[in-house]
Amino acid sequence: MKKILILPGDGIGPEIIAQARRVLDVLRKDGLAVETTEAPLGGAAYDQYGSPYPEFTQKLAREADAVLLGAVGGPQYDTLDRPLRPERGLLAIRKDLNLFANLRPAILYPELANASTLKPEVVSGLDILIVRELTGDIYFGQPRGVHVNEAGEREGFNTMRYAESEIRRIAHVAFQAAQKRNKKLCSVDKANVLETTEFWKEIVTEVAKEYPDVQLTHMYVDNAAMQLVRNPKQFDVMVTGNIFGDILSDEASMLTGSIGMLPSASLDQNKKGLYEPSHGSAPDIAGKNLANPLATILSLAMLVRYSLNDEAAATRIENAVKKVLADGLRTGDIYEEGTRKVSCSEMGDAVVAAL
Amino acid sequence: MKKILILPGDGIGPEIIAQARRVLDVLRKDGLAVETTEAPLGGAAYDQYGSPYPEFTQKLAREADAVLLGAVGGPQYDTLDRPLRPERGLLAIRKDLNLFANLRPAILYPELANASTLKPEVVSGLDILIVRELTGDIYFGQPRGVHVNEAGEREGFNTMRYAESEIRRIAHVAFQAAQKRNKKLCSVDKANVLETTEFWKEIVTEVAKEYPDVQLTHMYVDNAAMQLVRNPKQFDVMVTGNIFGDILSDEASMLTGSIGMLPSASLDQNKKGLYEPSHGSAPDIAGKNLANPLATILSLAMLVRYSLNDEAAATRIENAVKKVLADGLRTGDIYEEGTRKVSCSEMGDAVVAAL
Ligand SMILES: CC(C)[C@H](C(=O)O)[C@@H](O)C(=O)O
Ligand SMILES: CC(C)[C@H](C(=O)O)[C@@H](O)C(=O)O
Repeated sequence: MKKILILPGDGIGPEIIAQARRVLDVLRKDGLAVETTEAPLGGAAYDQYGSPYPEFTQKLAREADAVLLGAVGGPQYDTLDRPLRPERGLLAIRKDLNLFANLRPAILYPELANASTLKPEVVSGLDILIVRELTGDIYFGQPRGVHVNEAGEREGFNTMRYAESEIRRIAHVAFQAAQKRNKKLCSVDKANVLETTEFWKEIVTEVAKEYPDVQLTHMYVDNAAMQLVRNPKQFDVMVTGNIFGDILSDEASMLTGSIGMLPSASLDQNKKGLYEPSHGSAPDIAGKNLANPLATILSLAMLVRYSLNDEAAATRIENAVKKVLADGLRTGDIYEEGTRKVSCSEMGDAVVAAL
Repeated sequence: MKKILILPGDGIGPEIIAQARRVLDVLRKDGLAVETTEAPLGGAAYDQYGSPYPEFTQKLAREADAVLLGAVGGPQYDTLDRPLRPERGLLAIRKDLNLFANLRPAILYPELANASTLKPEVVSGLDILIVRELTGDIYFGQPRGVHVNEAGEREGFNTMRYAESEIRRIAHVAFQAAQKRNKKLCSVDKANVLETTEFWKEIVTEVAKEYPDVQLTHMYVDNAAMQLVRNPKQFDVMVTGNIFGDILSDEASMLTGSIGMLPSASLDQNKKGLYEPSHGSAPDIAGKNLANPLATILSLAMLVRYSLNDEAAATRIENAVKKVLADGLRTGDIYEEGTRKVSCSEMGDAVVAAL
């Protein structure tokens, strides 16, 4: 019996999680051996326990085999002290569970080709996987803060930092992902300016020797930001550090025009993982039954594939999502003329029916 | 008599600079009071003096009122020691001349609307100005390097750093630029994760009080990378630090699909500046008379406007460029059916004639 911890989070989190739960219930009825618990994270956790990642949640997260998250954050928490803000909860659970490998696919569904702001010929068939290191880099590097410097002036500072083992393990994840796809890996750095990323490049190049079937290239981050716009289909798998990965994976998601469709996985060394949609908590539409639950449902599919190792059940979920799209159902974010606009729960109904 | 230092640089640098020189010669004949000197930078400087920013060049650069640069870099220099590489010359001259304000326009010329990979309705009329801080941040922050850490493991590290005065002065440049445009300024940070940029946001917000006519907004860098793809026309002026500016300005340039058209200026406190095209040294087409000289010619226009304070002459150059585009002349990078493909020097001929 595997344990799944469900973290609805804030904003539209509870609504989209509710639909993913229904999908999970179908799989359980059909024999998937999982038990679920639920806990708050982010703003909801602050409201209940005074901390965005309270001990209650931490204990369950450590015990779980996988975690499914809705989204965190909301304007009502913007004025809280830094350590109490919702996104601190997210950073804390990533670090606490050692979820160093963030996998973010940017896939354009043929039915949603029009949603992209890019020309169809540039993005049709787009299928990129971004592998982002998630527990190191300037996100967690010490020292950091704001102090008065030697010149007597206030100054902010942060530290970018990557140890060899951190680079090595994420490189292995990326090479192995590339092996299962088109065997092309592009490592993104700023080696012409930053020693940390020159070191990154050196280690990735070393690890490449163990994967002679994968073609490794290197690209500067500024050029990568350009090439994603110019010709995104040149990429298969991209691997990069935490901050560059944050920027490039969001850019890549948006190339599809349908970020409401994109799941993500954050894995540790043993394929325990946290799964969440790539989009945010969308406070403006929270509670209105308007959100798109498909990215969360597809995140559940990733959970089933990676942490439960059940490829068949994962594919079953993904096929159900493809079917509802083919049937013309659309939530507001991906609606276009000639399709049928549905609510969040109606989309959930349709996926459950398609299963 | 104002002094302009010309740095042809590497790759296509000498070819595109040659065309800009011809434009400058016309202006001089018509009374522009400038004298020019020339010096090497980057790989060319390494070849001649063993350093990418030799004393010879430094002396002339310090004496000049403005500097016009082609481009630096080439594969033959890739194996040099880090301090000897061409881009070190560029970083060194920026720092040495205190060129902290990098202005990078991303403008879509109506004649070149098809060149963009984005849909016409998304980019038509695009006119963004990115103001990038250029002499601080993780580019220059100490400490930096690769060492063996406490755990006995090799580790790369760099330091992001911004002092209050550095943020203040670039904020003023950005607000003043916005005042001359549509009075909207978006400051880009990652304040939810990085103390340095939370401090950045605080200082920019303070400076805003002196510019009540400018509407200031803040955006996280990952969201900015998305919004540039989703709806770039929401932006007027964007201001950000060195590394985020490096990434976002390249992304924004590529939205136009015609980076061969985009100039840039890097200014000090007194409007002394270095002007260069936004594109690179394109070693693959160097020496073939194929390069697009228009970004360099438009960089000269920026030089004339900012450092020589001659708005009329700047506009004259820009109008000449508009005319050759309207006449249907195109270098290979912006060629499409129905236009006339010309070489680098033929494009120069046409601009000189249009002047
Ligand atoms: C909310 C924020 C801390 C987070 C990050 O920067 O990692 C988010 O942007 C993401 O990509 O998951
Ligand atoms: C060549 C490189 C050092 C430089 C930078 O990163 O600043 C370039 O990308 C630029 O934007 O001018």
